[in-house]
Amino acid sequence: MKASKILHVGKSDGAEYPLAKKKQSMEYLREIAHLRPRTNTIGAVARIRNALAYATHKFFQDNGFLYVHTPIITASDCEGAGEMFQVTTLLGEAESNKQEPVDEAALEALRAEVAEQGSKVKDAKAAAAEDKENKDLAKASKKEVKKLLQLKESLASMEEKARVIGGIQRKEDGSIDYSKDFFGKPSYLTVSGQLNGEYFACALSNIYTFGPTFRAENSHTARHLAEFWMIEPEMAFCTIEDDMQCAEDYVRFCCRHVLETCRPDLEFITKMIDSEAINRLEQVASTPFMRLSYTDAIAKLEEVVKNGEKKFQFPVSWGIDLQSEHERYLTEEVYKQPVIVYNYPKDIKAFYMRLNDDQKTVAAMDVLVPRVGELIGGSQREDRYDVLKERIEATGMPLEPYASYLDMRKYGTVPHSGFGLGFERLILFATGIENIRDVIPFPRWPGNANF
Amino acid sequence: MKASKILHVGKSDGAEYPLAKKKQSMEYLREIAHLRPRTNTIGAVARIRNALAYATHKFFQDNGFLYVHTPIITASDCEGAGEMFQVTTLLGEAESNKQEPVDEAALEALRAEVAEQGSKVKDAKAAAAEDKENKDLAKASKKEVKKLLQLKESLASMEEKARVIGGIQRKEDGSIDYSKDFFGKPSYLTVSGQLNGEYFACALSNIYTFGPTFRAENSHTARHLAEFWMIEPEMAFCTIEDDMQCAEDYVRFCCRHVLETCRPDLEFITKMIDSEAINRLEQVASTPFMRLSYTDAIAKLEEVVKNGEKKFQFPVSWGIDLQSEHERYLTEEVYKQPVIVYNYPKDIKAFYMRLNDDQKTVAAMDVLVPRVGELIGGSQREDRYDVLKERIEATGMPLEPYASYLDMRKYGTVPHSGFGLGFERLILFATGIENIRDVIPFPRWPGNANF
Repeated sequence: MKASKILHVGKSDGAEYPLAKKKQSMEYLREIAHLRPRTNTIGAVARIRNALAYATHKFFQDNGFLYVHTPIITASDCEGAGEMFQVTTLLGEAESNKQEPVDEAALEALRAEVAEQGSKVKDAKAAAAEDKENKDLAKASKKEVKKLLQLKESLASMEEKARVIGGIQRKEDGSIDYSKDFFGKPSYLTVSGQLNGEYFACALSNIYTFGPTFRAENSHTARHLAEFWMIEPEMAFCTIEDDMQCAEDYVRFCCRHVLETCRPDLEFITKMIDSEAINRLEQVASTPFMRLSYTDAIAKLEEVVKNGEKKFQFPVSWGIDLQSEHERYLTEEVYKQPVIVYNYPKDIKAFYMRLNDDQKTVAAMDVLVPRVGELIGGSQREDRYDVLKERIEATGMPLEPYASYLDMRKYGTVPHSGFGLGFERLILFATGIENIRDVIPFPRWPGNANF
Repeated sequence: MKASKILHVGKSDGAEYPLAKKKQSMEYLREIAHLRPRTNTIGAVARIRNALAYATHKFFQDNGFLYVHTPIITASDCEGAGEMFQVTTLLGEAESNKQEPVDEAALEALRAEVAEQGSKVKDAKAAAAEDKENKDLAKASKKEVKKLLQLKESLASMEEKARVIGGIQRKEDGSIDYSKDFFGKPSYLTVSGQLNGEYFACALSNIYTFGPTFRAENSHTARHLAEFWMIEPEMAFCTIEDDMQCAEDYVRFCCRHVLETCRPDLEFITKMIDSEAINRLEQVASTPFMRLSYTDAIAKLEEVVKNGEKKFQFPVSWGIDLQSEHERYLTEEVYKQPVIVYNYPKDIKAFYMRLNDDQKTVAAMDVLVPRVGELIGGSQREDRYDVLKERIEATGMPLEPYASYLDMRKYGTVPHSGFGLGFERLILFATGIENIRDVIPFPRWPGNANF
């Protein structure tokens, strides 16, 4: 390249510049998140991330799926609130609430006054009842009743004020009064758009979501983020077989797209980060996925344990939830290619997955890929009203929060299936980057939501 | 159509089905959000929304922009927290915190004990100082000091416990102790990805965001949502002129795309909702936007007021913030086409907009379109470190929260510009739907985050 002109657009003091020419640690770069995209690695990851995001849209749009924005804030009680972030305006108000505490003596005095007035009412009513003709007595009685009601109202208001603890209104049972919160109910950040996606799929046929999801898990591993992006397609008139085919087609499309559009970045990644990156993408792009029932997968794992070929930390037997070590062994060692495991025991899977005729397994499937293990989890959904109702009841959950979800099975139900893919896992798979915090522009984890 | 076979996939009781054949009110449909996409109108809107979303990705991708996921949760103090939702795990913990309140008497007793031990230490030290050779005295003194430290630690711990109010830990000054919250700081839902987008644009050239944003505004109008989607491109080496051109090209591309891909839905909308819908899209797709400086816009408005052609609720003079009535009059009545107003007075615009040489105006621009008024707001960003610093100081804000934002102007600054478009406004523009709650799948507003 020959420059014919150099334009000076802004200065930068080399002595102070926070990025030295040497290789920086990924940890240090996270501390200067506003500058880290200027490094080769994070720049390459950003471009690969962009390509995978666009490949996602392109794949689903080209196949007639509608992109649906499922909600981020949700007050629906469907999900276990344990690991959800709460969305509120109460704490800000609590801080600025300079209300004086209620004087206990005044409260007691008012209670006594109400009691006293209660006696007065009783007496006045008795007097009026004794002499029904006497209009003055009737009037006096009414007056006392009116005064009692006013006093009771004042008392209720004072008692309510007394239940403001640390600026936050409590109910009589001591719990937080969420009628004062922005949405009038406890509200949370979504952990999945699936239920909402199902509503749209059952109305408009094939849809997909692509948006942020959240986990308030106090986890500091290289595999967890508090905020991450998920892709969740949902297809009407679609069985678990179609679901597996769609998942496979989608992942393979993404691999081809990134190979076609990000060659220089992949070469950089292959040279600097993970020598297998391009090979892995090419292999997945070109090979159909292995399919294996859960029962066969367990048999295979039991076989290698018995043979002494492999020892696992977690013992293997029919009924266990596959651990990461099992999943990775299947895809990386046994079959050396992506594997779809399907028909899992119903007891280890969610209530909404369709019960198979064996009554023991559900039409669930997981896509396992080398390097990350489980990349996709999906299922055919239980579309039979009675079976779904029974399964909810069997979990011990109340039916009420699932009223709309059950409704859908009542008013024109259709077989439908879908899956979820954690977008950052797809980038880990494509790049071989070690820590999930380095494949998202501004990572959030416990103790960190800076920049 | 002739059916050769009818497949029964699931039953639906017509007598109970919540959607009657007659036209349903939009308000009623919002109450059955899980079924409303089955109506013609909401179905058409969903397909148009999908087309506009994909057009957005297509436009920016085809022009070399990278899609960047800016964060949803942010603990950066840059934004006025007044209208932000707080993200927390403190309230759930407060509910489940069954800790006994600290006994005031025990606390007082421990304080007294600490004071007493303080005296003992003083005495023991004095004794040891008097007889420096006596190792027993020195030892005894050390022992008393050790005991004092232990007591002080217990007291500090008890005092901390005593500052738990309603299950929430307070600091000594009475404010909430956010070191106990998930992110260790008060954290909020983002109101804009712009600042984060700037970091990426200044590293990787042109980028865009497309994600959810939030306002905790207690607003019940047909124009406000608590949760909505925004598109925010940011371009390095780009002036306000380029910015205006990009905004125009983008909006016109969206109009063409939706005209090409959603004809039947637009015809339905034009017939049932807004007879001008197709005309409006075709006009915008085919006509370059009018450009008008703020000063000229004010002159024009003053002229029509003077002529008696138009009366406004809000009086017009140089320096005012244009109201919706002014904006819509310019685009709908005066010019009858989209209008870009640029170079606004600095006092009515944000601190980060680039100061023009006249020192009175900033390089800001708003795109006004018929039916919705302001569709886009953007600006060239202040890329000069000293000017930006001065402008932050002039607003009276502290510099510290803007440290990273200033950093960017210190280490290789470049001219850059961007804009923001509220995605739901684009759909309002395309469909003529009256209420913004009806152009998003699951609308959120004060008191409502159901489904």
